[in-house]
Amino acid sequence: MSDERLTPSGIPIEPVYRPGDGTVNYARDLGDPGEFPFTRGIQPTMYRGRLWTMRQYAGFGTAAETNARFRHLLDAGQTGLSVAFDLPTQMGIDSDSPRAAGEVGRVGVAIDTVDDMHVLFDGIRLDEVSTSMTINATAATLLAMYVVVAEERGVRASALSGTIQNDILKEYVARGTYIYPAEPSLWLTAETFRYCKEAVPGWNPISISGYHMREAGATAVQELAFTISNAVAYVRTALGAGLAVDDFAPRLSFFFACHNDLFEEVAKFRAARRIWARLMRDRFAASDAGCRLRFHTQTGGVTLTAQQPLTNVVRVAVQTLAATLGGTQSLHTNGYDEALALPTAEAATLALRTQQVVAFESGIAATVDPLAGSHYVEALTNEVERRTLALMADVDARGGSVAAITAGFFQDEIARSAYEYQLAVESGNRAVVGVNRFADDEPVPVVPAPDYHALEAAQAARVAAARSVRDARALATALDAVSAAAPHAGAANCGLMAAIVDAVRARATVGEISARLEAAYGRYKPA
Amino acid sequence: MSDERLTPSGIPIEPVYRPGDGTVNYARDLGDPGEFPFTRGIQPTMYRGRLWTMRQYAGFGTAAETNARFRHLLDAGQTGLSVAFDLPTQMGIDSDSPRAAGEVGRVGVAIDTVDDMHVLFDGIRLDEVSTSMTINATAATLLAMYVVVAEERGVRASALSGTIQNDILKEYVARGTYIYPAEPSLWLTAETFRYCKEAVPGWNPISISGYHMREAGATAVQELAFTISNAVAYVRTALGAGLAVDDFAPRLSFFFACHNDLFEEVAKFRAARRIWARLMRDRFAASDAGCRLRFHTQTGGVTLTAQQPLTNVVRVAVQTLAATLGGTQSLHTNGYDEALALPTAEAATLALRTQQVVAFESGIAATVDPLAGSHYVEALTNEVERRTLALMADVDARGGSVAAITAGFFQDEIARSAYEYQLAVESGNRAVVGVNRFADDEPVPVVPAPDYHALEAAQAARVAAARSVRDARALATALDAVSAAAPHAGAANCGLMAAIVDAVRARATVGEISARLEAAYGRYKPA
Repeated sequence: MSDERLTPSGIPIEPVYRPGDGTVNYARDLGDPGEFPFTRGIQPTMYRGRLWTMRQYAGFGTAAETNARFRHLLDAGQTGLSVAFDLPTQMGIDSDSPRAAGEVGRVGVAIDTVDDMHVLFDGIRLDEVSTSMTINATAATLLAMYVVVAEERGVRASALSGTIQNDILKEYVARGTYIYPAEPSLWLTAETFRYCKEAVPGWNPISISGYHMREAGATAVQELAFTISNAVAYVRTALGAGLAVDDFAPRLSFFFACHNDLFEEVAKFRAARRIWARLMRDRFAASDAGCRLRFHTQTGGVTLTAQQPLTNVVRVAVQTLAATLGGTQSLHTNGYDEALALPTAEAATLALRTQQVVAFESGIAATVDPLAGSHYVEALTNEVERRTLALMADVDARGGSVAAITAGFFQDEIARSAYEYQLAVESGNRAVVGVNRFADDEPVPVVPAPDYHALEAAQAARVAAARSVRDARALATALDAVSAAAPHAGAANCGLMAAIVDAVRARATVGEISARLEAAYGRYKPA
Repeated sequence: MSDERLTPSGIPIEPVYRPGDGTVNYARDLGDPGEFPFTRGIQPTMYRGRLWTMRQYAGFGTAAETNARFRHLLDAGQTGLSVAFDLPTQMGIDSDSPRAAGEVGRVGVAIDTVDDMHVLFDGIRLDEVSTSMTINATAATLLAMYVVVAEERGVRASALSGTIQNDILKEYVARGTYIYPAEPSLWLTAETFRYCKEAVPGWNPISISGYHMREAGATAVQELAFTISNAVAYVRTALGAGLAVDDFAPRLSFFFACHNDLFEEVAKFRAARRIWARLMRDRFAASDAGCRLRFHTQTGGVTLTAQQPLTNVVRVAVQTLAATLGGTQSLHTNGYDEALALPTAEAATLALRTQQVVAFESGIAATVDPLAGSHYVEALTNEVERRTLALMADVDARGGSVAAITAGFFQDEIARSAYEYQLAVESGNRAVVGVNRFADDEPVPVVPAPDYHALEAAQAARVAAARSVRDARALATALDAVSAAAPHAGAANCGLMAAIVDAVRARATVGEISARLEAAYGRYKPA
């Protein structure tokens, strides 16, 4: 019919929802906040007890430049850090490698040795801030660097809190910063789980991420189904490596996007908690602590427009409300100019202010899960759950997420959704203000790209200088220990993380450690 | 207790709302959208059938300048007009009067004769747009001018749609653009009700306004209670003037503010509909059409900050969501720079884009009253209703709103709330981002005031020229007819509106007509 309305995931929306729509058994399907299945939130008091962490993803150029941005954001009231690394760092390539050319410091900060990490966190109390690092194939090395920075400042690893993204499966699907094949990559995650459990208990060794799949075009339902399917793969890997579920499940964390459809996004977050809690209890016999789905949210980069960029402030405000009404644990809000370039300090500050207005002026933090009971929201939560479980069953039928990704299933499904969305925008069925509705003649602002050559030369010189002052013998010994431990990463007592930490202490570069792992594991080749 | 949280109206907020909180009898207390008591909205399909009217309040300088802004806003997708008049026009003073000095064209457009109205609406199809006019003491004259502009363009009055504010009672409380005492002012409203019923049936002859009382410091509960109490006074006046309730009640309209507390504002709008419906049915035996509370909303000017002005985009976005989740019929969104000066075209456009993003991208328009059933929202709706009814009973016990206003009761209550709010901000109990939290060292931008002298001289010359080409005899006859009819305004067949329309046709100025009425009625003197 012509008046049919669908959510962006394709769920039909009734003109009116009444009592009897969205029915739930309160104790079984919602529960009080802090109680299984955690649909209403993972803590009893949620933001009334403590607000979400305001954590703006930032990083560019050198460690010193990024350190200045971090300090600016902390001064402006940010409550957590989130590091963006440049592509060479993410790919295990040093800044002085010819393979790094043109990319040093471009989409994030360039880190080669632990001395760069020292500069990155200069003047910041590592025992007082939590730090998230968007790092995957080289996650173990960057975590080791953070621990060694703390150690060299006299801060115990047990006092650290933060997260490494460390979710390699979604890299094969959507993000692309993979190095090694799936199996040894999964071993590496299990090894970081074990290491964190023992040495850095306040650390989240993984942030299982739907964000990048969503950015690539996944719907909210696909985002949930593929992310939770990947989570199951990590759980299985860790169990296979001899860990007990309650040794790692409480420290698993998630990362979702938040787009403009306010109610579908809230329903997504609520459904995610319910699905995860039941899955962990019923399939893996996790305790309650391992059934709580904790997640970071980032507002949707692809929802922003280069046209009329200040309009993005409105989108980000709507998404901030959706994320917090959905009970996120931490939030990055995008700068309004991110569709044009890396955010300016002004835009990054306004993005943080957006969270602060919602937190302190909108009243939404005063009671937990304020939308509970809404006939529409409960109906949508039920339906998002139903469709997500159906898609997860499809993934299971394909042998689980590793097999499904290897066969290209996630990728094909996402590509289809992206194509359908593009058609809907082009036909006008989905309105985008300033693009296919209410467009104007204002030219899209052109932001000149900074000149990265000087930065690259300086950072290359810096890493070269760092190499020249190392104890070559100690370094070789440490790197050889990495090589020796690498093949056993999937097994208990492999000692790989300890070897990486030693190599970092010896001022090994990200590239040098990665090269040893690549020699042991080989490279992933997409189908 | 220390963790107590209150809404801005002082309603305690529980940490968690569960089934059993906010209970309602669906048929009795909510009803389907479009059905008594209209809690869920006044139409069955609401925005899914037709979006709210995007109606930006605008006006400054000359009629030609304001016409250009109107055309810009219509080009940008605005769907209704809203005229801001300058103070002299609102006070019945012509632009060439010494009493107008320094105020011509300052807070709105200067209108002296119907020829200025012709310029104001040049190129705009009056039978295709709806126009709201913020005009009170001189409302009858400005309505007459609109009708005469249409007539002189060949558009029948029956094809016109729009609103005059025409709410004099709140002027005595909070806004100040009154001229005559209360009793004849109320007669004038009854006369406009009668005239519209007969001649301009698509016109709302009044917009009973809580906005300005809210701006003066009223809480959401006071805003509702005082506004609806004033509405009762208008209803009683019209009934006393011999009108039948169903002759005017369906064309009564309302105007509320929307502040930052998302859920209290939604509850306010829902409670307002329920209170009004029951009051009109039970006290005045109105038919369903006269029980539907239709309202315009403006985001809260006082919620905006001069500091960090772009942060206001976020506040306005939150308020836009609150107003539309609350079911408003039309909406003005403030420009982010309105705490500094009259909005720039860029800010006015972004304010309109804010509505468009919420309308077309957030998904909130796809189903009616999406928050219905939320335990929190229903509980808050019940409590806002309970407190509003209690305060309305207090007003009734004081002899109704006219007596209560004359005695200063509304004013005192609002002043007390304003004082308490100011104390809460100064103590830090109420956070205002950029003011008492997260303030920075950026200086508040200083916008130089335009030079109004040239504008004033030009408009004075224009009205002088208009005076010089009139048929003096016809003008005198028409104005004498106004004088003759004025004392009988409270009675049927007084003919006052017809006389004002004739005077407008004869190019009488706003000041000339007002002078005749003032001679008949005298001036209001505040206690």
